[in-house]
Amino acid sequence: MDTIYLIVLDGIGDRPIEKFGRKTPLEAAHTPILDKLVQMGINGAMNTIDIGVKPGSDTAHLALFGYDPRVHYSGRGPYEVAGIGMETVPGDICFRVNMGTVDEKMVVVDRRAGRVEDTSEYAKLLDGTEIDGVRFILKPGTAYRLGMIMRGKNLSSEITDVDPKEAGLTIKQAKARDGSKQAEFTAKVLNKFVELSHKKLNKLPSNQERVKKGELSANCLLVRGAGKYPDMEPFEEKYRLRACCIAGAGLYKGIARVLGMDVLEVAGATGKPDTNVRAKIEKAIAVKKDYDFVFVHIKAADSFGEDGDSDGKLKFIEKIDEAMVPLVGLPGAVVAVTADHSTPCELKGHSADDVPIVIVSPRVRDDDVEHFSERECAKGRLGHIKGEHVMPILLDIVGIAEKFGA
Amino acid sequence: MDTIYLIVLDGIGDRPIEKFGRKTPLEAAHTPILDKLVQMGINGAMNTIDIGVKPGSDTAHLALFGYDPRVHYSGRGPYEVAGIGMETVPGDICFRVNMGTVDEKMVVVDRRAGRVEDTSEYAKLLDGTEIDGVRFILKPGTAYRLGMIMRGKNLSSEITDVDPKEAGLTIKQAKARDGSKQAEFTAKVLNKFVELSHKKLNKLPSNQERVKKGELSANCLLVRGAGKYPDMEPFEEKYRLRACCIAGAGLYKGIARVLGMDVLEVAGATGKPDTNVRAKIEKAIAVKKDYDFVFVHIKAADSFGEDGDSDGKLKFIEKIDEAMVPLVGLPGAVVAVTADHSTPCELKGHSADDVPIVIVSPRVRDDDVEHFSERECAKGRLGHIKGEHVMPILLDIVGIAEKFGA
Repeated sequence: MDTIYLIVLDGIGDRPIEKFGRKTPLEAAHTPILDKLVQMGINGAMNTIDIGVKPGSDTAHLALFGYDPRVHYSGRGPYEVAGIGMETVPGDICFRVNMGTVDEKMVVVDRRAGRVEDTSEYAKLLDGTEIDGVRFILKPGTAYRLGMIMRGKNLSSEITDVDPKEAGLTIKQAKARDGSKQAEFTAKVLNKFVELSHKKLNKLPSNQERVKKGELSANCLLVRGAGKYPDMEPFEEKYRLRACCIAGAGLYKGIARVLGMDVLEVAGATGKPDTNVRAKIEKAIAVKKDYDFVFVHIKAADSFGEDGDSDGKLKFIEKIDEAMVPLVGLPGAVVAVTADHSTPCELKGHSADDVPIVIVSPRVRDDDVEHFSERECAKGRLGHIKGEHVMPILLDIVGIAEKFGA
Repeated sequence: MDTIYLIVLDGIGDRPIEKFGRKTPLEAAHTPILDKLVQMGINGAMNTIDIGVKPGSDTAHLALFGYDPRVHYSGRGPYEVAGIGMETVPGDICFRVNMGTVDEKMVVVDRRAGRVEDTSEYAKLLDGTEIDGVRFILKPGTAYRLGMIMRGKNLSSEITDVDPKEAGLTIKQAKARDGSKQAEFTAKVLNKFVELSHKKLNKLPSNQERVKKGELSANCLLVRGAGKYPDMEPFEEKYRLRACCIAGAGLYKGIARVLGMDVLEVAGATGKPDTNVRAKIEKAIAVKKDYDFVFVHIKAADSFGEDGDSDGKLKFIEKIDEAMVPLVGLPGAVVAVTADHSTPCELKGHSADDVPIVIVSPRVRDDDVEHFSERECAKGRLGHIKGEHVMPILLDIVGIAEKFGA
């Protein structure tokens, strides 16, 4: 069977930019390799979740993999903790945490504590704390981030964030979202823990040293994204495909781990603009015989969009394009290139605008589209699809779709 | 009111074929008549059930007629037994059966018992058998096939097949799919019947004669497709249309009978490549005054696809095209030509690829499409629709759609 490649160019879609003559970064970029794929394949426009729905990165990927996020998604926490390799058990509530700086009135001074680069010390200080029978498990993530798990009985993910998400605001008390006793208990215990850890962090010698030097103290856990570890059928069982993930950023590895994909490490895959895209593509091709499904995630175009940096986005798109060379004419493969969502530079955030998709295989009814872009791909033979259609279409191209009926 | 013609060219859709210069059989064929219809009509692409869903022939037709197969479909059996004119009562469980040959270890040697041409003798031997209060009713179908009904109390269609679907495999024990007592009982009784009938068939003089001659013995019932007779609103009541069916193959007559359509017999309509397509079209036109809705089914392009015979498929498409002449400019008619699904020659089976659809009437907003093909019709004004949209569109064209609202 052909190996299926699903290559997700995070946040690649954009809106017209005046200085590009109302072209998007993707339209303005020189992308001969992506264009070649488009000329060989079938093209379309896709809304990962639905028309007019602005997806998160997590929900968009769940939808692309064929897991309805409206059913399976409770919060981002589980994917973050899985991304940094934390082990979970049923009933765990998982969170994303930033190390932040608060003043004596608990007002957030900096949401990243001056961008601390290692949180091992803080994780070690607080890991294993028990409050009212609930154990807090913490592990350092990348830079100023941590993963956190609340483990105990009668916990709920239906609680609001502690992180106010903006400097200058007071940190929030977690609250029950659904009025249930479980959520009220979980919020109460979490609030106690945040208060306790603030006291402990203030006393930490390294933080007192920072204060003396006039630096920002990493004295508060900004907790958010409560989510229950999801009970989803593993990808391999659902589709009977041996699947792997090649990604730099933790969230995408986390989603892959939660779905039971093998997460392959590639030297130089950082999830940042300096990432070695070519190394990821070469790794993806090198494992063709070992896997039926290879998910490749390329992050940085999204980050440029979040920063409003259209020039940076355009250049990174051209870097991606060059790295794609080995995919052109790759035998024994179905290659799909798309995005999880648009990240318009003018919005500095996600939007619900659809994204281009191309699928290359000798088996597809190739069309007349010439360029990989939001507006050109939308003219293609694939039409306007949703994320939920991607896996069924790919399975059908390789000839293993299940028949409904006889 | 205009008479609506729904002409289903089974399995007509395909994928690009290298020896046809990456054209599909439909694109490569010379089809001046179908092209003429396309030039007069409105065109589109259609997925009978949904994008990425590979339809069976039965589910595809239910969807086309406006009956959601996700609600109404339990298995193919009821349509097969209806197709050969068996009478059913509520609670009946219906099956498709092949006469097969098994060895002494119950391994399937041939799934068609050397393609026996008449199963009357076997049906007569086994019809009326009662086991644990359940009556087995059997009737010969075409060639090596039979229809079978289990009639009794507390039966369920949620059971697996006895037929392993491949020579070289042992026949299976039917099992409950849903763990219910009804399904377990049904499976148990069916397994007893299959065993008993194997013994009886082994003793049958004609089979003993075959064995002596070194021929394949028709000594096993390969049972599959358990389905409950569906409780669907008759077509005529649902749409207030007097409806008839012109088809060669049993399944399509069966679906029409289940929906309460009149099944018209046409000499030379065989459901095979030798079928008289022209006679079917002429019959369809001859009954225009008697019916508001005429369903015409033309089977053989699908069979060529299943055999991987692209040349045969192309030639049969040209045979269909020639037969369509009387439909061009037919007064007082709305003519829709489409397919139930694609059957790509390279897959030798159904696929989820969409199919072309053309609707001809002076009342449609005709478009610029010139050729009847997968890629050309997709450019048409009808856009990309689903099977469930076909009946509402046709009713609206003839002006009898019900208004939603005031």
